[in-house]
Amino acid sequence: MQPKAVVLLSGGVDSTTVLAIAKNLGYSVFALSFHYGQRHEAELHAAARVSGKIGVSEHVIATINLRVFGGSALTSDIAVPKDRPFNEMSHGIPVTYVPARNTVFLSFALAWAEVLGASDIFIGVNALDYSGYPDCRPEYIEAYERMANLATRAGVEGKALTIHAPLIALTKAQIIQKGVALGIDYGMTCSCYDPRPSGACGRCDSCFLRSKGFAEAGVPDPTQYCGPSEDEDLPEGHYLKVTL
Amino acid sequence: MQPKAVVLLSGGVDSTTVLAIAKNLGYSVFALSFHYGQRHEAELHAAARVSGKIGVSEHVIATINLRVFGGSALTSDIAVPKDRPFNEMSHGIPVTYVPARNTVFLSFALAWAEVLGASDIFIGVNALDYSGYPDCRPEYIEAYERMANLATRAGVEGKALTIHAPLIALTKAQIIQKGVALGIDYGMTCSCYDPRPSGACGRCDSCFLRSKGFAEAGVPDPTQYCGPSEDEDLPEGHYLKVTL
Repeated sequence: MQPKAVVLLSGGVDSTTVLAIAKNLGYSVFALSFHYGQRHEAELHAAARVSGKIGVSEHVIATINLRVFGGSALTSDIAVPKDRPFNEMSHGIPVTYVPARNTVFLSFALAWAEVLGASDIFIGVNALDYSGYPDCRPEYIEAYERMANLATRAGVEGKALTIHAPLIALTKAQIIQKGVALGIDYGMTCSCYDPRPSGACGRCDSCFLRSKGFAEAGVPDPTQYCGPSEDEDLPEGHYLKVTL
Repeated sequence: MQPKAVVLLSGGVDSTTVLAIAKNLGYSVFALSFHYGQRHEAELHAAARVSGKIGVSEHVIATINLRVFGGSALTSDIAVPKDRPFNEMSHGIPVTYVPARNTVFLSFALAWAEVLGASDIFIGVNALDYSGYPDCRPEYIEAYERMANLATRAGVEGKALTIHAPLIALTKAQIIQKGVALGIDYGMTCSCYDPRPSGACGRCDSCFLRSKGFAEAGVPDPTQYCGPSEDEDLPEGHYLKVTL
């Protein structure tokens, strides 16, 4: 019987790549997405497309209300920053950081893993492009794994639980190259923090890093960027040029 | 200004006592309860009563769906065990254990603490009466605290976050004595795993431990136990005798 793994799936480049990696390692994959009051529900549609295309044993979308606490541009009324130069992005914790998000997500994954009898959880955190997020660092993942092994039946019964973060030391370009090698069509994924019906905004940090990743990987970018709407006042200099 | 603390509040004896302890230590208390698909919503009413009576800065009830994963008598269709002798209760992990529950609850508390700028989280876990729950052990709480300090802005900025578990080494009787000394009216709390409109069932593990705690503390038990309904077949021997 295939071993079971719970894979956290947002529907973006990173988690989609992780899903393909887990499948390729021979796991029966249980994909877990969250409807958590994020502005960008488009990513849930992407997660469903990815689950169907790559093939999972089950895809669960858990609804949780992180808006109840506020505190992030991704769940509250703080504006999503646009057109930031790369060197600004890499300083400090960005306002798009959702408080304790990975901790909350991993905790649900842990609950599901326990019910399934799964010993493996996969998460697409990445320490290089997102050094500003405390819960994307290797030492955080290690501490979470240690805690998880004390929290659960598995730990009590001596069956070790592993938190896999296979992208943690990769650049976005390396992630994309790995995914392409595994046959992923990234056109079905969604990374934008502020997507429009016509596509990704092309101007938030996430769009910027995605676009930069494809360019550096030397892989054609399949993303539908819609660009700015006409009534928006564009700041000078930092506009991300995209080809529609 | 008073320091802020997030207190996990189920509305039972333990978390109510913890709330009173945090208030007594001078914290401005932010009480957090969960509607998580539990059978016993009566405890949420108790949590609201307790918050109002003891006095909190804010009481948030977060809705999360743990039923989506199944796996516990408290959230699924597995029967709540009744009339178990005490020595059976203390062996193994009970079916009323909700997978990763404290990990999920603490993760939401962590998110709220981060938004509030609070450095203190209180949880009413207890290692003595509930030795069968892996996530009630001191080593689990320590590992959670270590992880939490790596997960958050506070950790990155060097402000330590503390997980307080002031009841962890106390017996139920000692908890009740402490609460009575702090002026708690335990009549407003609810501990039953399977409550009826007329009161606590008086026969689940939680009712049993509560009743035993009051008896051992030498404190009159203010609980409204409704006893068995007439059409129930009672097993012999282990029925908890209660005075209505």
